[in-house]
Amino acid sequence: MASTCPINASLVLLGDRWSLLVVRDLLFAGYRTFNQFLHAGEGIATNILTDRIERLIDAGIITKGPDPDDGRKWLYSLTPKGIDLAPVLLELSKWGSKYENGIAPPGVLESWEADRAGFLTELAKRVKTTQRQPKTARRSR
Amino acid sequence: MASTCPINASLVLLGDRWSLLVVRDLLFAGYRTFNQFLHAGEGIATNILTDRIERLIDAGIITKGPDPDDGRKWLYSLTPKGIDLAPVLLELSKWGSKYENGIAPPGVLESWEADRAGFLTELAKRVKTTQRQPKTARRSR
Repeated sequence: MASTCPINASLVLLGDRWSLLVVRDLLFAGYRTFNQFLHAGEGIATNILTDRIERLIDAGIITKGPDPDDGRKWLYSLTPKGIDLAPVLLELSKWGSKYENGIAPPGVLESWEADRAGFLTELAKRVKTTQRQPKTARRSR
Repeated sequence: MASTCPINASLVLLGDRWSLLVVRDLLFAGYRTFNQFLHAGEGIATNILTDRIERLIDAGIITKGPDPDDGRKWLYSLTPKGIDLAPVLLELSKWGSKYENGIAPPGVLESWEADRAGFLTELAKRVKTTQRQPKTARRSR
C-alpha cells in the first residue's frame, strides 16, 4: 500500500540533510553556483552535491541554466515549488535556534513570526530579483 | 569551521526521512509502540527503525518507558522538544499536499493556517493526554 501522507511525500524528496541545505543557500544566501554550494560551510562532498542537485532538478525544485557571463558555467535557480519550501526551512531554523544552539541571522525569525505572509512575499521578490541578476549573485559569496 | 546555521543544526538531527516519520506517528496518529511505527504504512525496515528510535532518544526528542499494562513492552513519548517539531511537519504536509499529491486529513491544514498558535496548543494537549493513557493509545491503530 502506498502512503498518501503528504509529510511522507515531502520527505521522500527532501528527507536528506543536504538537499535542504542547497535550497537554503539559494533561498537565503543568494548562492547560484556549484562552487558556492560546495563551500557553504557544512562540508558537503562533491559527489553528494552533484547527486543532490540532480535530484532537486528532477523534482522540479531547482532549474539549471547557462551563466550569461560565462557560457561554460551553470547557474541554478529555485522554481516556485522550491521557493515554497521557505516555511519548512524557517520552522527548522526556529527549532534549531531554540534547541540546538543554531544562530539565525538577527531579526529573521522575529520577522517571520510577526508577519509570515509578508515575509514570504518579500523573500520571493528578493529571490526573483537575485535570479535575474546572475553577475551580482555570483560574486556575492 | 563549524556551521552555526540553525537549519543545519536541525537537519543534522532530523535530515532523514524516517526520523521525522516516527515523530509524525507520535504527534498525529497517537502511536506509541515499535510495532505501530513499523506498520505505519511507509515500510520502514526493523533495523532502520531501531536506529532512528535510538537517535531520537539521544537527541532528547522522544523518551522510552515501560508499558504500565505490560512491563515487558516499551512505550515511546514525545518530549516538549519533540512536540515543538509540529510546525516543521505541518509545513512539510502543506508543501507535500500542494506539490506531491499527498493527502492531509480533512481540515487539518485549514485549521493550521487559520490559527497556528491555537492549533499547536490543542495538539500539545492531545499528545499529553494520549501519553497519559497508554492503553487506549496502544490499541488505537
